[in-house]
Amino acid sequence: MPRIAAFGEVMMRLQVPGYETLVQSSRLEYSFSGTGVNVTAALARYGHNGAIITTLPETPLGDAAVAYLRKLGIDTSLVSRGGKHLGMYFLENGFGVRPGRVTYTDRLGSSFNTAAVSNYDMAALASRIDVLHLCGITLAMNEDVRKQMKRLAGEVKSAGGKVVFDCNYRPSLWGADGYALARPHYEELLQLADTVMMNEQDAQFILGIGTGEYDRITQLKHAIPEVAERFGIGTAAGTHREINDNNTHSLTGYIYHQGRFEFSRKLAFPVLDRIGAGDAFASAVIHGELQKYPPQQTVNMAAAAAMLAHTIVGDTALFTEGEVLRALSEHTLDVER
Amino acid sequence: MPRIAAFGEVMMRLQVPGYETLVQSSRLEYSFSGTGVNVTAALARYGHNGAIITTLPETPLGDAAVAYLRKLGIDTSLVSRGGKHLGMYFLENGFGVRPGRVTYTDRLGSSFNTAAVSNYDMAALASRIDVLHLCGITLAMNEDVRKQMKRLAGEVKSAGGKVVFDCNYRPSLWGADGYALARPHYEELLQLADTVMMNEQDAQFILGIGTGEYDRITQLKHAIPEVAERFGIGTAAGTHREINDNNTHSLTGYIYHQGRFEFSRKLAFPVLDRIGAGDAFASAVIHGELQKYPPQQTVNMAAAAAMLAHTIVGDTALFTEGEVLRALSEHTLDVER
Amino acid sequence: MPRIAAFGEVMMRLQVPGYETLVQSSRLEYSFSGTGVNVTAALARYGHNGAIITTLPETPLGDAAVAYLRKLGIDTSLVSRGGKHLGMYFLENGFGVRPGRVTYTDRLGSSFNTAAVSNYDMAALASRIDVLHLCGITLAMNEDVRKQMKRLAGEVKSAGGKVVFDCNYRPSLWGADGYALARPHYEELLQLADTVMMNEQDAQFILGIGTGEYDRITQLKHAIPEVAERFGIGTAAGTHREINDNNTHSLTGYIYHQGRFEFSRKLAFPVLDRIGAGDAFASAVIHGELQKYPPQQTVNMAAAAAMLAHTIVGDTALFTEGEVLRALSEHTLDVER
Amino acid sequence: MPRIAAFGEVMMRLQVPGYETLVQSSRLEYSFSGTGVNVTAALARYGHNGAIITTLPETPLGDAAVAYLRKLGIDTSLVSRGGKHLGMYFLENGFGVRPGRVTYTDRLGSSFNTAAVSNYDMAALASRIDVLHLCGITLAMNEDVRKQMKRLAGEVKSAGGKVVFDCNYRPSLWGADGYALARPHYEELLQLADTVMMNEQDAQFILGIGTGEYDRITQLKHAIPEVAERFGIGTAAGTHREINDNNTHSLTGYIYHQGRFEFSRKLAFPVLDRIGAGDAFASAVIHGELQKYPPQQTVNMAAAAAMLAHTIVGDTALFTEGEVLRALSEHTLDVER
Amino acid sequence: MPRIAAFGEVMMRLQVPGYETLVQSSRLEYSFSGTGVNVTAALARYGHNGAIITTLPETPLGDAAVAYLRKLGIDTSLVSRGGKHLGMYFLENGFGVRPGRVTYTDRLGSSFNTAAVSNYDMAALASRIDVLHLCGITLAMNEDVRKQMKRLAGEVKSAGGKVVFDCNYRPSLWGADGYALARPHYEELLQLADTVMMNEQDAQFILGIGTGEYDRITQLKHAIPEVAERFGIGTAAGTHREINDNNTHSLTGYIYHQGRFEFSRKLAFPVLDRIGAGDAFASAVIHGELQKYPPQQTVNMAAAAAMLAHTIVGDTALFTEGEVLRALSEHTLDVER
Amino acid sequence: MPRIAAFGEVMMRLQVPGYETLVQSSRLEYSFSGTGVNVTAALARYGHNGAIITTLPETPLGDAAVAYLRKLGIDTSLVSRGGKHLGMYFLENGFGVRPGRVTYTDRLGSSFNTAAVSNYDMAALASRIDVLHLCGITLAMNEDVRKQMKRLAGEVKSAGGKVVFDCNYRPSLWGADGYALARPHYEELLQLADTVMMNEQDAQFILGIGTGEYDRITQLKHAIPEVAERFGIGTAAGTHREINDNNTHSLTGYIYHQGRFEFSRKLAFPVLDRIGAGDAFASAVIHGELQKYPPQQTVNMAAAAAMLAHTIVGDTALFTEGEVLRALSEHTLDVER
Repeated sequence: MPRIAAFGEVMMRLQVPGYETLVQSSRLEYSFSGTGVNVTAALARYGHNGAIITTLPETPLGDAAVAYLRKLGIDTSLVSRGGKHLGMYFLENGFGVRPGRVTYTDRLGSSFNTAAVSNYDMAALASRIDVLHLCGITLAMNEDVRKQMKRLAGEVKSAGGKVVFDCNYRPSLWGADGYALARPHYEELLQLADTVMMNEQDAQFILGIGTGEYDRITQLKHAIPEVAERFGIGTAAGTHREINDNNTHSLTGYIYHQGRFEFSRKLAFPVLDRIGAGDAFASAVIHGELQKYPPQQTVNMAAAAAMLAHTIVGDTALFTEGEVLRALSEHTLDVER
Repeated sequence: MPRIAAFGEVMMRLQVPGYETLVQSSRLEYSFSGTGVNVTAALARYGHNGAIITTLPETPLGDAAVAYLRKLGIDTSLVSRGGKHLGMYFLENGFGVRPGRVTYTDRLGSSFNTAAVSNYDMAALASRIDVLHLCGITLAMNEDVRKQMKRLAGEVKSAGGKVVFDCNYRPSLWGADGYALARPHYEELLQLADTVMMNEQDAQFILGIGTGEYDRITQLKHAIPEVAERFGIGTAAGTHREINDNNTHSLTGYIYHQGRFEFSRKLAFPVLDRIGAGDAFASAVIHGELQKYPPQQTVNMAAAAAMLAHTIVGDTALFTEGEVLRALSEHTLDVER
Repeated sequence: MPRIAAFGEVMMRLQVPGYETLVQSSRLEYSFSGTGVNVTAALARYGHNGAIITTLPETPLGDAAVAYLRKLGIDTSLVSRGGKHLGMYFLENGFGVRPGRVTYTDRLGSSFNTAAVSNYDMAALASRIDVLHLCGITLAMNEDVRKQMKRLAGEVKSAGGKVVFDCNYRPSLWGADGYALARPHYEELLQLADTVMMNEQDAQFILGIGTGEYDRITQLKHAIPEVAERFGIGTAAGTHREINDNNTHSLTGYIYHQGRFEFSRKLAFPVLDRIGAGDAFASAVIHGELQKYPPQQTVNMAAAAAMLAHTIVGDTALFTEGEVLRALSEHTLDVER
Repeated sequence: MPRIAAFGEVMMRLQVPGYETLVQSSRLEYSFSGTGVNVTAALARYGHNGAIITTLPETPLGDAAVAYLRKLGIDTSLVSRGGKHLGMYFLENGFGVRPGRVTYTDRLGSSFNTAAVSNYDMAALASRIDVLHLCGITLAMNEDVRKQMKRLAGEVKSAGGKVVFDCNYRPSLWGADGYALARPHYEELLQLADTVMMNEQDAQFILGIGTGEYDRITQLKHAIPEVAERFGIGTAAGTHREINDNNTHSLTGYIYHQGRFEFSRKLAFPVLDRIGAGDAFASAVIHGELQKYPPQQTVNMAAAAAMLAHTIVGDTALFTEGEVLRALSEHTLDVER
Repeated sequence: MPRIAAFGEVMMRLQVPGYETLVQSSRLEYSFSGTGVNVTAALARYGHNGAIITTLPETPLGDAAVAYLRKLGIDTSLVSRGGKHLGMYFLENGFGVRPGRVTYTDRLGSSFNTAAVSNYDMAALASRIDVLHLCGITLAMNEDVRKQMKRLAGEVKSAGGKVVFDCNYRPSLWGADGYALARPHYEELLQLADTVMMNEQDAQFILGIGTGEYDRITQLKHAIPEVAERFGIGTAAGTHREINDNNTHSLTGYIYHQGRFEFSRKLAFPVLDRIGAGDAFASAVIHGELQKYPPQQTVNMAAAAAMLAHTIVGDTALFTEGEVLRALSEHTLDVER
Repeated sequence: MPRIAAFGEVMMRLQVPGYETLVQSSRLEYSFSGTGVNVTAALARYGHNGAIITTLPETPLGDAAVAYLRKLGIDTSLVSRGGKHLGMYFLENGFGVRPGRVTYTDRLGSSFNTAAVSNYDMAALASRIDVLHLCGITLAMNEDVRKQMKRLAGEVKSAGGKVVFDCNYRPSLWGADGYALARPHYEELLQLADTVMMNEQDAQFILGIGTGEYDRITQLKHAIPEVAERFGIGTAAGTHREINDNNTHSLTGYIYHQGRFEFSRKLAFPVLDRIGAGDAFASAVIHGELQKYPPQQTVNMAAAAAMLAHTIVGDTALFTEGEVLRALSEHTLDVER
C-alpha cells in the first residue's frame, strides 16, 4: 500500500449554518481541514495510506483536531504536538449574488507556523513516505515553514520518493509584490517536484512564462510544456472554472504527461460547498498516477471527483473510486433504494 | 364517508438532516411512513376515512408510530399490536450528481412481516372497508404476508368492496429471477383488483405483455388495454418520470378507463423530497374515482398532487383538494400574506 | 448625520425552519421586523441615524423586540413602552409550486395599534427628525393610527423635514371595498409626501389614475407624472417584479424625478427570503436622495439592494453601500478568501 | 369505554429551549395544550375515550393544533372550526432562584373565546358525554363562555352524565376584586358538579368558607366537608405543594369521599416541567372514580401521577396506569434495558 | 505498547435528545458503542493500543461505525466487513422518578451475530493480542458467537496472552431459566480468564456460589475467593452501586488479587449518562494491571474512572490517567481558565 | 443619567452546547463578552448609560461583536475599529466532578491588545465619563495596554470622574513570578482608584498585606482597612465563594466603606453558568454607590446579583433592580403566570 504524506497546516473551520451571517446567527459548526488533510483523507478513501505531517497544540482543540483526522481515515502517527494555537477560519455561506465570506484568525501564531525545524526528524519522516504532497498555501506562511518544506522534499527525493506540488497561489497571503516575493520559492519547489498542480495563470503570474495569447486553452498549451521542461516535471494538471449565470459552476480538467495534453469534458453542476474542490482534483490525479491509469482516464476521474466535491458538506470530500466512476457515467440519479 | 383501508407495513424513516452523510453527521430526524400510510393519510386529508391495517410492536417505538399515524389523520383503530420490531430505513439526501441513499434495517423481522395470519380477523375487517389498498412492496415480503393480502382482498370483494393494487415492483426486494418469482403473485392480485397503478414497464417485465415498441407512450397504449382485458380491471393509471439536466424532474400522468386513455400535461418542477410521490398520485386517483370525477380531471389532479408531493418534507404528502387545484392553475406563486 | 425616523409597528416573525409546515414541525425561529424597522435599520447600515417611533409592551416580548432593534443598529430612544401585546406573524416557507404562507395573530390588539394619540409628543418628535418614513400598511390599521400618522407628518413638514410615503397597499388589510375606503387616506398622505414609493397599479387602483394602457411601462409613464403633479411629489420610485419559470424572480426599478424617468437593468436572481425586498429598495432610494446621487445611480443601487435583500435571511436586509455596488458590478462571485 | 369530554380552550405553548430568555434566544419550541387537553389526553392514555369540545381557527395554526391533539390521542370529532385566532403563551424556563416566566398573547380574541353560543349544539354534545370536565380558567374568560359552560353542564346533568369541576382560580385572570366577581359563577358551577378539584384556599378565598385555622390540613378538614354539603358534591380532591430549599418540590394529595378524608404520602421530587401537574392529578382522580378504585388507591395514584407529570416535557403528561403504579412502588430507578 | 483487543458487537445508539420520549420528539443523536468499544477506546486513551475484533456491514451505516471507532482512537485494522445489519438501540433519557428506557432492534440479525466462525482467522488474531477482553453480553448472543469467543480465548492463551472476562449478566438476554442456560458457558469462560469483572451476585446467581450472608461485603468476601480458586483467576474486581434519594448514585469498587481484598472509598456523584460506567471501571482495572500498579491504587483509579464516566455524554468515556487522578484528589472544581 | 465607561477587551465566547467536549461535538454557540462588557451591560440594564472603550477589527467578526454589544444595551459610540483579530475562548461545560474547561486563542494579537496608544483620544474620552471601570485582566495584557489604562484613569480623575478597579488577578496570565511582576502595576492602579473589588487573598498575594490569620473573615478585616488607607480607597468590596458537596455554590459578599464592614448573608444556590458572576457583583456595587444606597443594602443586592448571574446563560447577566430585589426576598419561586 503506497504511503502518501502531506506536510501542511490543519485548520479549524467554523461555519455559520444555513445562510445567516455572523451578525445574525449565534451558532457555528466546526470541522478541521487544510489542503494536506483533504488530500490524504481522499487518498485514504481510495485505499492508500494517507498521513499528515503537522504540529497541533496539546489543548482540547488539538485533541479535537486529531480525533477528527482519525475519523477521516488519516494516519495521525506523524503528527507532532506542541505550541499553543490552531489556525482557524470562519465561513459564512453566500447565496446567489451574495458571495460567501472567509475570515481568518491569526494563523501565523499557530503551532504549525511557529514550530521549530527541529520539531521534525526529516530523514526519519522521509523513510516512511512514498509520495509527499506540498502546497503553495504552506509556502506563503513564513521562512521557517518554507525551509521545512524544502528540506523535507529534498529528503524524500533522496530516499527515492516522489514530490507533488500544488501551486495554489493565494494573493491575500503574499501581499503586495507577492508574485515577486513568491517566485524564487515556487521555482525551488518546482525543481523538487515530480507532479505539479497549476494552470496557465500560475505560469504567467508567478513564473512569468507565457503571455499575450488569445484564449486560456492556447495559453495553457504554450505555458505548461515550457514549465515542465524548465523544471523537469513529469506530470502537470489543473482545472479551468467558470461560474454560470444560473448559479451552476463548470469545470474542465487537463493533464499534461509525456508531452501530451488530455482534457476532460466540461462538467456543469450545482454547488453545495465549493471549498476543497481543487484538493479533490489533485487527490484523484495522484491516485491515477499511483494506479498507472492512462492520463485520459485520470483527468476524467479527477474532474468528476472535483465535481462531486462540490456536492459534499465540508472541505474534505470523501468518496470511493466507484462513486467517482458512477458520477462520470451520467446515469440518471434517482434516489438509491 | 367512504372508508378506505390499506394493508401494509409502517416503517420508521431516519433521515440525516441537510446534506451530510451518515459518516459525517451525528443527528437524525425520524418519522413513520409506508405506502399504506401515505395513501390513507392523503385520503383522510381529502375528507375520507383512511385506516391502516398493520401490526406494530408494543414498545416505545410502536407507541411513537401510532401517535404519528394519528397526527397524520389516519384511523388507527384497525392496528394490531404485537411482535417485537419495526422496519426502518435510513435516508441520506443527495445533492446534484450525488444520489440520495436508502439503507434498510432487517425489515423481514418486523412485527408486520412476522405476524401470523390469525392476527387479523379478515372477515370482520372486510366488513369495515369500502376500498382496500394493496401494494407490490408488501407482496414482496414473504409467503405469509402474501397469503394475508390475498385473503383480505378476497374477503373485501365478497363483501362488495373495491380493491386497488399498486404494482410498485422493487427489484431489490425480489432478488435474482425476481420477475419470474413475482409473476404468479402479481397475476393473482390483478385478478382481484378493480383499480391498478402500473405502467408499460410493469406490464412487460412482470407480466410479459407488450414488447418491441418504439416509444413509451405507444408501448403503454398497447400493453395497458391488454392487461385490463385479461384481468378485468376497470381503471389503470400511472406516471412517466424524467430527470432533467437542471436537477428538475418531469412527470406525465395517464389514466385508462372504459377503453379510453387520458393524459395530464407534462409537469416540470424542482424536487425537495422525492419519496412518496407515487403514493400521492395513487391517492388522488382513488379520490377522483370516489368522487366520480371525469378521468381527465382525475389524472390532472393526480399529476399535480404528485408534483406537489415533491415539494413537501417527508414521505407523506398532505394537502387539500383546493391546494392541488391551485397548483394546477399555474397562478404566480408569490408568498401568501 | 441625517436623522431618519419611521413611524410604524414592530412585529414578531415566527418562522418554521426549513421547508416543514406548522403541522409537521415543532420549532420556530423568531425575529422582529416591520417596514419601519427594515427601512431605518438599512439606513443605519448606510451610515445615517435611523430611529423607530413605535409602542412596545412592557413584557419579556417587548424587551426582546427592543434588544433586537438595537442589534440591527436602530436608534430606540423614540420607542414608547405600554399596552399589552405585540403583533405577530407565522411564516411557512414555500418550495417550488408550493407557495409560502403567512398567518397573522390579532395585530389590531397590539400596543402600537391601541396606543392613544397622547402617547406621542408629536412636536418633540418632529424636532428630532430630518426624514420621516410612513407606509400604507400602517395606514390600514385603524382611525387612531391614521390620525397619528397624519399629525406626525404635518409636524415634520412644519419643522422643515421631509416625508417619504410607501404606498404598500395590502388588499387583505383593507377588506372588501378596500380601495374606496383607502383612497381619501392615501390622498391625504400623498399631499404630505415629498418622496413616494408606488407603481402604476397603485395609481390605478387606489387613486383611479391611468387605465387602459397596453403595457406596464407605458402605464407607468402616464400615471406617475400625473400623480406627481397632482400631489406635488418630488420623487417617485418603485419596482416591477416577475416570477420566472425556473423559480428565479426578476426586478426592474424605476425612479421619476424632476420630470424624468430612469430605469435600472432588469435583474434576475434566485430567492432565499422574499419578505422585505421592497423596503430594501425604498431604503436605497432614500439613501440616494440624502447623498444627492444622480437618479440613475440611485435607481441602480436600489434595484441591486432589492436583489441582495432576496439573498438574506429575515425581513431586514443589512448591507453597506460597498456591498450593493459590488452586487451591481457583476464580478464573478467565487467565495471571498 | 366511558366517554369523557372537556370544554375548554386549546392554547399554543411557545417555549424558549434551554435556559435562555426571550431576549437572548432566537428559537422556540411549540406545542398545544390547555387544561381540557391535558385531562382528556391523560384519560385517553388510561384507556378511556377523551374528547375536547372547543373552537379552533381555519388557519395553518388551527390545523397544527388539531393534528397535535390527535397525536396526543384525543378524540377531535367534537372540535368546531371558525374564528380567527388561537390563544398563545410564551414560556421562559427558570433556573434555581430565577423563576420561569409566562407571557400571554391576547387570548380573549381567540376562536374559543369569541365563539357564539350557537356554535355548539349543547344537547347533541351532551348525548355523547358520560363525564364532562370544566375548569376555573375557562370560567374566567368572559360572560359568553361562562354561559356556554353552564348550559353544557346543565345538559350533561339532564342526560344523566357527571360533571367534574376544577376550581383552578387564577388571580391574574379575574383582576382586582376578582374573588367577589368570581364567587357567584363558582357557586353555580359547584351546584352542577359531582366531583370537584379544590383545596382549603379555594374554599376560603372564593367561597368565604373556613378561616382562622392553624394549619392547612386542619383548615382543609373544616372547609371541604362544608363545601361538599352545601353544594352536594360527591368527591373533592386536591393537593398541597411545597417548594423545598434544594429545588425539589413536595406534593401531598387528599381526597374527600362519602365523609372520609384519605391522604397520599408526601412525595418529594425534582422538577423538569411544572406546568400541567394539577391536570395530571385531576385526570387520575377521574380515572380512579371511573374504575371505582378505593379512595386511598385513587389519591395515591393521583399524587404519583402529579409527581410523574413534573418529570415530563410539556404541559400534557402521558403515561399508563402501569407507569404510575411503578412510580408509586419506589423501586430503584436504574435505566431499563 | 501492549496490544489489547476486544471481541464483541458494535451497536448504534440512537438517543432522543433532552428529556422528551420517542412519542414526543422527532430527533435523534447517534453514536456507536458496545462493551468492547468502550474498553478498547478507554485503553487507547490511557496510551495502549486498543483494537476491536468484530464484523460490520458494507453499508453507509457500517462506514459510519468504522469512522466513529477511528475517532475514538480504536485500532480498526481487525474489523471484518460483511453481513447486512448493525445492532441498534434507542435510548430515552429518564428524569427523577421516571426511568430511562432502552429499546433494542433485532440484534440477532446483525453482521456480528450472523458471522460464520470462518470469518475470523483466530490464530492470526491471537498472534497480535497481548490482552483479550470478552464480555457476558456477547456470550448471551448465540451458539456460533459463543464458539468464536471460546476459540479465540483459547488461541490467545496458547499464544501467551491474557484473557479478561466481564461477567456482565443481562437477564433480558438469557430469558427464562437464563441462569441455568448460562452457567456452563460462564464456567468455560472463567476457566480461560486471568482477570474477571464480577461481584457476589454473579457468583451466587450464575455459579451458585455463596448464599445466605447478611450483607453484600460479607457475601463478596466469601464468594469471590472461592470463585478465584475454583477457576484459577488471578484478579477479580467489581463495584457495588447504590441509588440515593437525591438522584445521585454511589459506587464502591473492590479488587481481589493474590488473596487480598482492597476497596475504594464510596464515591457519591450526580449522573449525566449512566451507560458505560462499568466498562470504564473495567478499563481502569486492566490499565492498572498492565502498569503493575498496587491493587489499592488500581481500585481507587477504577472507581474514580467509573464515577467520571457518569459525567460524560455517551457510552464511551474517554479521559487520561491525569484526569482520573484529579477526580480522585477532590480538589475544588471551579471552571479551569 | 450617569455615564459609566469600561476600558477593556471584547472576546468571542465559543461554547460547546450541552455537556459534550470539543472532541465529541461539532457545534458551538457564540456570544461576545469581557469584564467591561459585563459591567457596562449590567449598568445599562439598571438604567445608567454604559459604554465600552475598546478596539474591534473591521471584519465580519468585529461587526458581529458590535451588533451583540448593542443588543446588550451597551453604548458603542466609543468603540474604535481597526487591527485584525478578536480574542476568543472556547468553553466546554463541566458536570459534577468533571470540571469545565476554557481554551484561549492567541488574545495578545487581538485588535485591542495591539492598538496603539494614539488610537484613543484619552482627554476626549475622559470628558464623556463619570465612572471608569478597569480590571486586572486588562492589566495583565502588555505594557502598551497598561499605559493606556493608566493614562485614561489619570485623565478621568483630572476631569473629576471616579475610577473603579477590579483586581481580578489571573495567575495564568501573569506567568511565573507573576505576583512580583504585577505588584507595581496594581499599586499604581490602586492609587488611582476610588472603588476597588478585591479580597484578602489579593491583598496578601499581590500587595503582601496581611498574613498568618486563622480564618478568611479575620484576614479580610485586617487586610482591607490597611489597603484602603495606604491607597486612599473609598470603597472596597468582594466575595468569598465556597463549592459545596451537592454541586451548589455559596457566596458571601462584603463591603468596606468609611471604616465599616458590612456582610451579606451567605447565599447557597445551584449553578448554571458560573462565568461573569464576579462582574455582576461589581456592577451592583457600582449601582449601589451611584444610587447612594446604604452599604448594607448595596452588598445585599450585589450578593443577590452575583447569585442570579449563576442562573443565566452566558457571561453577561442582565436583570433589573426589581429582579434582584425579588431574588433577595426569598419568596417561593413557582412559575410566574
